Amino acid sequence: MSSTHLGIPKGTRDFGPNIMAKRQYIFQSIQGVFKKFGFQPLETPSMENLSVLTGKYGDEGDQLLYKIVDSGDFLKKANTADFEAGYKKLLPAIATKGLRYDLTVPFARYVAMHRHEISFPFKRYQMQPVWRADRPQKGRYREFYQCDADVVGTSSLLCEAEIISMINQVFSVLGLVDYSINLNHRQLLVGISEAIGAPGMQTELAVSLDKLNKIGPEKVLQELESKGFKSHQLTALEPLLQWQGTWEQLRDPLSEFLKDSASGQKGIDDIEVILQHVKAMGHTDPKVIVNVSLARGLAYYTGAIFEVVDNKVSIGSICGGGRYDDLTGVFGLPDVSGVGISFGVDRIYDVMEQLNLFPDEDLSFSKVLLVALDDQSEHHALGVLSNLRKNGIASEIYPDRSKLKKPLSYANKKRVPVVVLIGQDEISSGKLTVKHMAEGTQEQLTEQELVGLLTKENG
Amino acid sequence: MSSTHLGIPKGTRDFGPNIMAKRQYIFQSIQGVFKKFGFQPLETPSMENLSVLTGKYGDEGDQLLYKIVDSGDFLKKANTADFEAGYKKLLPAIATKGLRYDLTVPFARYVAMHRHEISFPFKRYQMQPVWRADRPQKGRYREFYQCDADVVGTSSLLCEAEIISMINQVFSVLGLVDYSINLNHRQLLVGISEAIGAPGMQTELAVSLDKLNKIGPEKVLQELESKGFKSHQLTALEPLLQWQGTWEQLRDPLSEFLKDSASGQKGIDDIEVILQHVKAMGHTDPKVIVNVSLARGLAYYTGAIFEVVDNKVSIGSICGGGRYDDLTGVFGLPDVSGVGISFGVDRIYDVMEQLNLFPDEDLSFSKVLLVALDDQSEHHALGVLSNLRKNGIASEIYPDRSKLKKPLSYANKKRVPVVVLIGQDEISSGKLTVKHMAEGTQEQLTEQELVGLLTKENG
Repeated sequence: MSSTHLGIPKGTRDFGPNIMAKRQYIFQSIQGVFKKFGFQPLETPSMENLSVLTGKYGDEGDQLLYKIVDSGDFLKKANTADFEAGYKKLLPAIATKGLRYDLTVPFARYVAMHRHEISFPFKRYQMQPVWRADRPQKGRYREFYQCDADVVGTSSLLCEAEIISMINQVFSVLGLVDYSINLNHRQLLVGISEAIGAPGMQTELAVSLDKLNKIGPEKVLQELESKGFKSHQLTALEPLLQWQGTWEQLRDPLSEFLKDSASGQKGIDDIEVILQHVKAMGHTDPKVIVNVSLARGLAYYTGAIFEVVDNKVSIGSICGGGRYDDLTGVFGLPDVSGVGISFGVDRIYDVMEQLNLFPDEDLSFSKVLLVALDDQSEHHALGVLSNLRKNGIASEIYPDRSKLKKPLSYANKKRVPVVVLIGQDEISSGKLTVKHMAEGTQEQLTEQELVGLLTKENG
Repeated sequence: MSSTHLGIPKGTRDFGPNIMAKRQYIFQSIQGVFKKFGFQPLETPSMENLSVLTGKYGDEGDQLLYKIVDSGDFLKKANTADFEAGYKKLLPAIATKGLRYDLTVPFARYVAMHRHEISFPFKRYQMQPVWRADRPQKGRYREFYQCDADVVGTSSLLCEAEIISMINQVFSVLGLVDYSINLNHRQLLVGISEAIGAPGMQTELAVSLDKLNKIGPEKVLQELESKGFKSHQLTALEPLLQWQGTWEQLRDPLSEFLKDSASGQKGIDDIEVILQHVKAMGHTDPKVIVNVSLARGLAYYTGAIFEVVDNKVSIGSICGGGRYDDLTGVFGLPDVSGVGISFGVDRIYDVMEQLNLFPDEDLSFSKVLLVALDDQSEHHALGVLSNLRKNGIASEIYPDRSKLKKPLSYANKKRVPVVVLIGQDEISSGKLTVKHMAEGTQEQLTEQELVGLLTKENG
């Protein structure tokens, strides 16, 4: 049939074995840290009712939701007038389910639904794909994984400290060393609005500040002006756009700047406590930069906010999160405070690829390929194969009889480090012919010696 | 807001922490065996173009595909006549993508698309959810995981033997002991059609035989009669419906029954070779039952077919697969023979739950919960916490200050086996108060003794 069948939808990807090996390495590393910090796994359905998803991500987000056509006669609730009125009018009649847009809203829905079974504080992690009908572009996909960890049901600042500790451990396990954890606090932004004489304008302020890295300080100030900020307010704000540094550097000037704002003082106190906790956890260099222009787009944050960037690879945020006070309120469960973090696997992958951080030994598949040289030797080879696997060694036998070139090329392409030839000579001598692919060397080993060699390499 | 927001779509499920722990145990066990056999991971997008999916699963399957509404103005290609003509006519104009129905078709699409990069034989495994707009009922879901392993690009019967070996290893790792691997061969069904005087009728025969366990032999024969099988043909067939047994029991009567059928002989020879290979792999009891009435529904099988049932829990097939000769032909790549197996995680879960096979130690999360008894002790506790984690011990600190009842109840519900109390007394004596939750005992240990105790329990 025609090759038109062979594409995949725009913005989606196949992950072949070599990419998968690297992705699994990232997922397992993150999951290992989540577990060590006492987070428990959760999975929610790919589809949610549109009533759960709609209205949670702003108008733009609603546009980007993937909607699923109702099963069977999806037009049974629609009439010609709906159709004539256009797609926005018809949609609710033909689609009641959508694919999840993130893991946060399904998590909030889960917590509200299962509030009576959950023992709070609830620490959950979730690693699942999400879907957004975004315009595909470099580094932006329509299906991608999120790796989230959240604690809900406590307002303790220990949680923020644990998240900073967790970020450090994840990137340490992955071998990233030169990154910064940008830290800010929504109450500092409230305080700054007050201090510059624009109380209550923190949301407008945050939305514009969020673009600082993309469009630069001048355009941020222009945008704020167009939102109604007065020129003396912008003059007061301008120096703060450069305020990034260690807490030791920023604490005093911030305290001075925000001395008349209770909210600002709350932000300062929280950051102080969080960083003391981090220190008590033994982190001598937690790579935290306090950055008062860090805003993060999402409306639901109310306390500390985090964003991690790699200092060598310019790719934007590779991890981000923050404290929220009312995530589940919209689902009928008010006043549940929590704090969460999300690791951006696709970007972390790109950073690690650029910095060559994937360890070779974790990316190989089988440790050994057996090649039977004739039919009579095949059954002997199968015994060796079972013995290797019994010893926990990932092993294969080349299934077809062919010239040696083919299995050797197969081993090369699949990065199998050892090829073992088994023929009549090997069976009668009791010594297998062992080829080391990388070195191009060959030796004769007994079956037991082979197992010893490969378990040593494994360990 | 209203509680109507709180549901999830029919036929889908949330997997909370306790269920997830068990599911992860199953997935990891299967994945471990797949890797040991040299299978490599693959992931394909959740969405495929409907041109890839449609027409691969029969008319009924096409009905069960979830279709995704095209982004933006999905009506721009539709006109009122399409709408008036009904949903079947309108659908292609408004939806061009669907959710995958299984992992086999996306795999075939992947192989055809990437034929020039893949080194054959290609051994891949894939563990991802699939979606079917089926009527929800007990044990049948609209979103569920499949765990597939396939080898393509070789017709060697070693692959069938490896699959039987792999099935045995997976169930051995999971602790299942009393199961049967039903084995049949499509060419035996061809031969049986010929031997009963109904050559070419093997598909009709297979479709009816597939229902044998559900509707019994009488109704199978009635159904075959209605399909045009003659009474002398049914009389010849009837005794075979009972033919199940070891290969030693069935080989001779089958050879006799099929002595005039070349296809039948091919089936017999294949099974003979497969089981010899399995024996050579050291399986003294591979639990294989040859069952000539095993049919399996899917049209694409051409050789050996497998289906595993648990002998204690009646839940149907928990694993199945077979040899196919032309899976990728429809995507423009003919003559690629392969053999695959699929593990049914949901049913395996149910069987293991009923037989109480989940090992307790793999289902707990944190090994220890620290409780600081006052603010002054908190920073000391954070140091202990970091030290425990540094030693690879999954550990938590209770984040809120409260009466001891709350953290103890939290530990109980989350099955944390050890709770450690840290207050002024503990800090000054250098001995932590360690509570063993299951035993209800308490002892005083130094930090080092605590680490020793918990790493010992871990190992």
